[in-house]
Amino acid sequence: MDIYEESLELHKKYHGKIEVTPTVPLTTRKDLARAYSPGIAAISKAIAEDSEQAKNLTIKKNTIAIVSDGSAILGLGNLGAKAAIPVMEGKAALFKEFGGVDAFPICLDTQDPTKIIKAVRNIAPVFGGINLEDIAAPQCFAIEETLKEKLDIPVMHDDQHGTAVVVLAGLINAMKLRGDCDRGICLGAAKKIRIVINGAGAAGVAITKLLLAYGFEQVIMSDSKGAIYQGRDALTQEKEKLSVLTNLACRIDIDDPRCARSSLEDALTDADVFIGVSRAGLLTGNMVKKMAKDPIIFALANPEPEIMPDIAKDAGAFVVATGRSDFPNQVNNVLAFPGLFRGALDHNIAQFTQGMFIAAAQALANYRKKPTMKQLMPDPLDRSVAQVVADAVGKSVK
Amino acid sequence: MDIYEESLELHKKYHGKIEVTPTVPLTTRKDLARAYSPGIAAISKAIAEDSEQAKNLTIKKNTIAIVSDGSAILGLGNLGAKAAIPVMEGKAALFKEFGGVDAFPICLDTQDPTKIIKAVRNIAPVFGGINLEDIAAPQCFAIEETLKEKLDIPVMHDDQHGTAVVVLAGLINAMKLRGDCDRGICLGAAKKIRIVINGAGAAGVAITKLLLAYGFEQVIMSDSKGAIYQGRDALTQEKEKLSVLTNLACRIDIDDPRCARSSLEDALTDADVFIGVSRAGLLTGNMVKKMAKDPIIFALANPEPEIMPDIAKDAGAFVVATGRSDFPNQVNNVLAFPGLFRGALDHNIAQFTQGMFIAAAQALANYRKKPTMKQLMPDPLDRSVAQVVADAVGKSVK
Repeated sequence: MDIYEESLELHKKYHGKIEVTPTVPLTTRKDLARAYSPGIAAISKAIAEDSEQAKNLTIKKNTIAIVSDGSAILGLGNLGAKAAIPVMEGKAALFKEFGGVDAFPICLDTQDPTKIIKAVRNIAPVFGGINLEDIAAPQCFAIEETLKEKLDIPVMHDDQHGTAVVVLAGLINAMKLRGDCDRGICLGAAKKIRIVINGAGAAGVAITKLLLAYGFEQVIMSDSKGAIYQGRDALTQEKEKLSVLTNLACRIDIDDPRCARSSLEDALTDADVFIGVSRAGLLTGNMVKKMAKDPIIFALANPEPEIMPDIAKDAGAFVVATGRSDFPNQVNNVLAFPGLFRGALDHNIAQFTQGMFIAAAQALANYRKKPTMKQLMPDPLDRSVAQVVADAVGKSVK
Repeated sequence: MDIYEESLELHKKYHGKIEVTPTVPLTTRKDLARAYSPGIAAISKAIAEDSEQAKNLTIKKNTIAIVSDGSAILGLGNLGAKAAIPVMEGKAALFKEFGGVDAFPICLDTQDPTKIIKAVRNIAPVFGGINLEDIAAPQCFAIEETLKEKLDIPVMHDDQHGTAVVVLAGLINAMKLRGDCDRGICLGAAKKIRIVINGAGAAGVAITKLLLAYGFEQVIMSDSKGAIYQGRDALTQEKEKLSVLTNLACRIDIDDPRCARSSLEDALTDADVFIGVSRAGLLTGNMVKKMAKDPIIFALANPEPEIMPDIAKDAGAFVVATGRSDFPNQVNNVLAFPGLFRGALDHNIAQFTQGMFIAAAQALANYRKKPTMKQLMPDPLDRSVAQVVADAVGKSVK
């Protein structure tokens, strides 16, 4: 049996991967009177008087929604709400297992951004946070932004920010390993390092923004039409915003050889880092050879990476990371999302910020004290990671 | 400490009464690959190909939503969405404890029926059923009807039908005890017995409909303006429908002494049964004295009944039931809702019907083999009751 058949067996056996269980005693008549009618009237009254009490007296304290419209499920595309259920409940299981966060899947029967926003606003009262998941770009950007504005609980699109946090953590440790950093401080090197990010969907956009916020200055984004630069054709609103912040050489001197105005291959010339959140096979060995010495390759397309690790290595890659658990250096969101929400709930944060994401990435990088070629990042199975990330989120708001 | 203070202590200690926990192993890398990425892709694909598979491979098989807009919380009134959370999560705890049903609270930040319907339709994909709860009349009727029409999963407003099922069960056993029935068959007696239902909200309307569907013929409803009859002023759409089906004496001969056209007190003359789902103190001892010999009194207003049991008894009541756990004969919905949804999920029913509710009530009544004055109904703490009800639901569709 391959892993897909094994997964099917698991789901046929368990029919869903989470359950909703009571935490309070329900054995005696008195238990019922306390947990339900009539005792419960006191709790409803207390919350009606002071709605903040919902965070103390109900599941709102520790419960988030994982919301998807099924428009961008894994690497599979738009399969709709019901096909999203197994992914969202899997994620809910990981939230509890790794972060102690109660998470419940909400799979929406609409892909209209306005209706998604309305639905999430309407169901928000019971939740202490909203994890948006597998919602396609570019709609995901406006949905997240609007919800952050309208809701009084933290909202995060994990395909964007969870991925960005783990990529930044991995990149910091790759730089340490390559000798770019000065006694563990990589900010100086960040200014000099040239990065090409291929793929301008949810993850690509968020990674770009977070790397810029961290202090990287030489970042070029590339999409299916090649390098993104100011004034290029076919730019969505989000890409247009980023065209001003990336590929900066073009803004100073359009003839500067570092100004990338054509293909991904061209953009990669002398680049130190390739980050792919795009499609299988888009990076070739020859393209790696054109990069700077000892390039860092994060080929994160799922399930097939942009380049297979052995091909990248043969072409001179210094270190390779992928999205897969069967290769070294898996960039796995589970390192970030349980801790990010654990921190948000514990420290009652109003909204996630880039500062929190950077703090989380830095903490993740540091927690892997001695990164190696085969393990840049902490072990996704390490049960302490979420608390490390949660603490970093908490400290960042102090 | 009274029960309200004890409840507050419980909620301060537990911060919510349910949690969302994984049911599948998540210890090894292989576990993660099976329960989440990449294995999960196979499940999403299988559901995308055949959406019915969601009922087999995901939590949809055993999970329902408990939906409230907080407009009619317990007997407290319109306290809004957040004040509904403790009630809905308490109910979710009972669903799991008694029926093995995974239930999750959805407290809506809107009280507009159209928006409620939209929100529930949008979140429906992940659920195998919808329990509507504490939604005020008359909106609750249209909301339930529309959702039953639009959704392919069973929908039930528990304040209506859960209450009606338990009332019918209790009434059947009260009749047996009073000697109205013939070797446990009460249908013949049902035609002769005169019933007054005071309160024409969600519960009153549903009880009336279910009693009529069972076979009772002499039913009079009464609201704050007195007896309901065809052509009376101030009838909502729902009451108007029922005015045709109840108080039938008025339709045959307006001067028939059994035609009730004024007060509750007048309607109660020679009545065998009083069912109150109204307000504290509305039934007096003198009114009980005007009823037929050995009247059956169900005074279900919460937390204070329409008449206290001792006063009713002194005035000649044969048997008294209330909504309270500290008096005998508590009419407690927990006897019905876990089993109704257990049955709906297990037998994959398309929608609840009056036939199912009658079957459930009959099964509940029969399960209490020897009803007594102090215990007409099964014990709410009896863990077998839900299965009895579920089996009855299942048999009713065979």
